[in-house]
Amino acid sequence: MKGTVLYGPRDVRFEERPEPKILNATDAIIRISAACVCGSDLWPYRGINPISEPTPMGHEYCGIVEEVGRAVTKIKPGQFVIGSFFASDNTCPHCRAGYQTSCQHKEFVTTAQASVLRVPLADGTLVATPDIPPQDLVPSLLSLSDVMGTGWFAADAANVKPGSTVAVVGDGAVGLLGVLSAKLMGAQRIIAMSRHESRQKLAREFGATDIVTERGDNGVVRTMELTKGIGADSVLECVGTQESMMQAIRSTRPGGSVGYVGVPHGVELDGEKLFYAHVHLHGGPAPVRRFLPELIDLVWNGKINPGKVFDLTLPLDQVAEGYRAMDERRAIKTLLRP
Amino acid sequence: MKGTVLYGPRDVRFEERPEPKILNATDAIIRISAACVCGSDLWPYRGINPISEPTPMGHEYCGIVEEVGRAVTKIKPGQFVIGSFFASDNTCPHCRAGYQTSCQHKEFVTTAQASVLRVPLADGTLVATPDIPPQDLVPSLLSLSDVMGTGWFAADAANVKPGSTVAVVGDGAVGLLGVLSAKLMGAQRIIAMSRHESRQKLAREFGATDIVTERGDNGVVRTMELTKGIGADSVLECVGTQESMMQAIRSTRPGGSVGYVGVPHGVELDGEKLFYAHVHLHGGPAPVRRFLPELIDLVWNGKINPGKVFDLTLPLDQVAEGYRAMDERRAIKTLLRP
Repeated sequence: MKGTVLYGPRDVRFEERPEPKILNATDAIIRISAACVCGSDLWPYRGINPISEPTPMGHEYCGIVEEVGRAVTKIKPGQFVIGSFFASDNTCPHCRAGYQTSCQHKEFVTTAQASVLRVPLADGTLVATPDIPPQDLVPSLLSLSDVMGTGWFAADAANVKPGSTVAVVGDGAVGLLGVLSAKLMGAQRIIAMSRHESRQKLAREFGATDIVTERGDNGVVRTMELTKGIGADSVLECVGTQESMMQAIRSTRPGGSVGYVGVPHGVELDGEKLFYAHVHLHGGPAPVRRFLPELIDLVWNGKINPGKVFDLTLPLDQVAEGYRAMDERRAIKTLLRP
Repeated sequence: MKGTVLYGPRDVRFEERPEPKILNATDAIIRISAACVCGSDLWPYRGINPISEPTPMGHEYCGIVEEVGRAVTKIKPGQFVIGSFFASDNTCPHCRAGYQTSCQHKEFVTTAQASVLRVPLADGTLVATPDIPPQDLVPSLLSLSDVMGTGWFAADAANVKPGSTVAVVGDGAVGLLGVLSAKLMGAQRIIAMSRHESRQKLAREFGATDIVTERGDNGVVRTMELTKGIGADSVLECVGTQESMMQAIRSTRPGGSVGYVGVPHGVELDGEKLFYAHVHLHGGPAPVRRFLPELIDLVWNGKINPGKVFDLTLPLDQVAEGYRAMDERRAIKTLLRP
């Protein structure tokens, strides 16, 4: 079997890897139908998160179950399934509270840019679609594995309500799907922060009513102008830098909510500033598993088409070009087909 | 008229001050029935928040209205009223959202440890009791001006729900009234962090079910033991130091909520740690005005007695001793009678 391995900054190789096997009775083996490159994969790709050894890559996946361990009772061979980047048992207290990415037995999945994948805790992690999907649904179903689930969590964490004013910081795939999520949750006004024409276009298609091209302090000023000096009710932070986090907090009205899903890199929050900002702050690794049944329904019934964020599709063996295109912002998100 | 002025660290003087007068048409002048020393007054008293000039003190107050400006229509001379430490118009978008301490026209009240006080934006700031209260209700009514309203906001911000498990970091008057608030909101289990016997006793009286004497890392370990490794649903942070803030965050279960009301001093939150903690974070200067009508009802009808936190009552001219007793932790909170 072949899979993707990162050897160092900008050194992605598609190479022979050991065939995944059932290691624990709760595992499943799935044949990947589609995988993709995540914005967070770019952190190690760019050397910002250094790696100490060659690292298999990929944590977004969907595919057909080939084999299950003897303790797996719900997931069956032949099913088309979607999982999240953290395997979770879905039975511990944190899972039951809806925070499966903090599962007491969580395991990070990191070999999904490959043709075959072992998924731990299969019954807790995987959700099957009603049937084998037609090919045109696969991109949208794949997006639920992380990027759409994460945009949805950002909107959920930012407490988006019908009629509310929402701002989205970040025009990557997560930010764009945050726009779509806010729209689905009934937001009346959605301000998307973007300076890239193709992303602005998709943001508008997903429901953005206003585009702000300014960043940082100027982005805050512009959002304040658009909201008559009040601030947005809900702000989705989908980047993870100090600038984006402070922009999100300062664009929120007192009593409003920031939902942050960009993995923080070098972010330090000044306690006193946060105190007087008076905002609600919630975020973290998106508990995608909580949302999978609902989001699968929406995709299956044609209500949403989050797969539109994939503007580049490549055969899996061209994965290195998929990383390059996203790194250079030539592509929003790369879909990989084995 | 005499009032309290802080000249420098531990130098509190009760001295002749100009008689407060109506300056704006929206002002009211009230004769103070009772005032008190706030935990936050100890920051400048101890020199931790340095002052640059002699500073009049006091922001918790209740009393009888003597005079109102010509634009004041709701508040009438002769009424017994309670206000908050921030005057607020109660009509701007932030006030209407329930965040009166972020009012677009807010003014800090800081001359209340005196016999007479000017209150700006009287109609928005002050709430009258149904009648002139009996003397024995005055301490509890005074507490609503800040300390009880702040404890209540901590519990509200920490999303305390019936049946939930709550931890309270800080055994000052705010923390103790946070215990009372959590109890009123239906918490099933309330873990109070305290190493002082008299405060532990009051915490139990207010509804604490468990006392943890350990702090910092050990406090977290103990809370985790008490919650079977899960963490508390809601944690009230009522101190404002780096240690207390991290203790609060780390004692909360993923998906749980931290309500923080201790004014942060030197607090820096690591974005990545906060991200993986998966908690909800909300706090800031308590919008006491939002809660005043409800809390006045509870006190008026004998449902709560938050005035119990005053374990020292002094004539106003002995205000310096009131500060000393709190600084040396001989008193939880000092009530001052003009």
